[in-house]
Amino acid sequence: MTDIGHNSEASDSRLRLLIERIERLEEEKKGISDDVRDVYAETKGTGYDPKIMRKVIALRKMDPEARREQETLVEVYLAALGMS
Amino acid sequence: MTDIGHNSEASDSRLRLLIERIERLEEEKKGISDDVRDVYAETKGTGYDPKIMRKVIALRKMDPEARREQETLVEVYLAALGMS
Repeated sequence: MTDIGHNSEASDSRLRLLIERIERLEEEKKGISDDVRDVYAETKGTGYDPKIMRKVIALRKMDPEARREQETLVEVYLAALGMS
Repeated sequence: MTDIGHNSEASDSRLRLLIERIERLEEEKKGISDDVRDVYAETKGTGYDPKIMRKVIALRKMDPEARREQETLVEVYLAALGMS
């Protein structure tokens, strides 16, 4: 591994530690993503549509005011396109 | 909240629990992403380039054989383009 600027053993082991910390965190993140996938898989038997659930989760993240504004704009655009 | 198929209180509360579980997991994931960002921020003072670190982390994920094959192919393509 090359370390431009200060290529010492201490520095190399620092790089290794940083890389390994990131790899551990990314692994945890992957574990959680797998859990999310499992929850969606669980919903299969309930009759709830995962696609709609994702939309609802995105909407719940939004500020209610911003959500209403967005809904209004979508309607305006749809009307402009003769799709309302 | 509409639940096509079986719109009961028990079912509504099941939907709520599923949604809340996913939201908690997504929040944990966001927390870990923030931690990763913090580690990269920490590297700023070390002289290591975060962009190169990301590339190295991707390479470390690969099977060594697949990595060598990819490197060879990249060289072949570069040569074909007169860039080697």
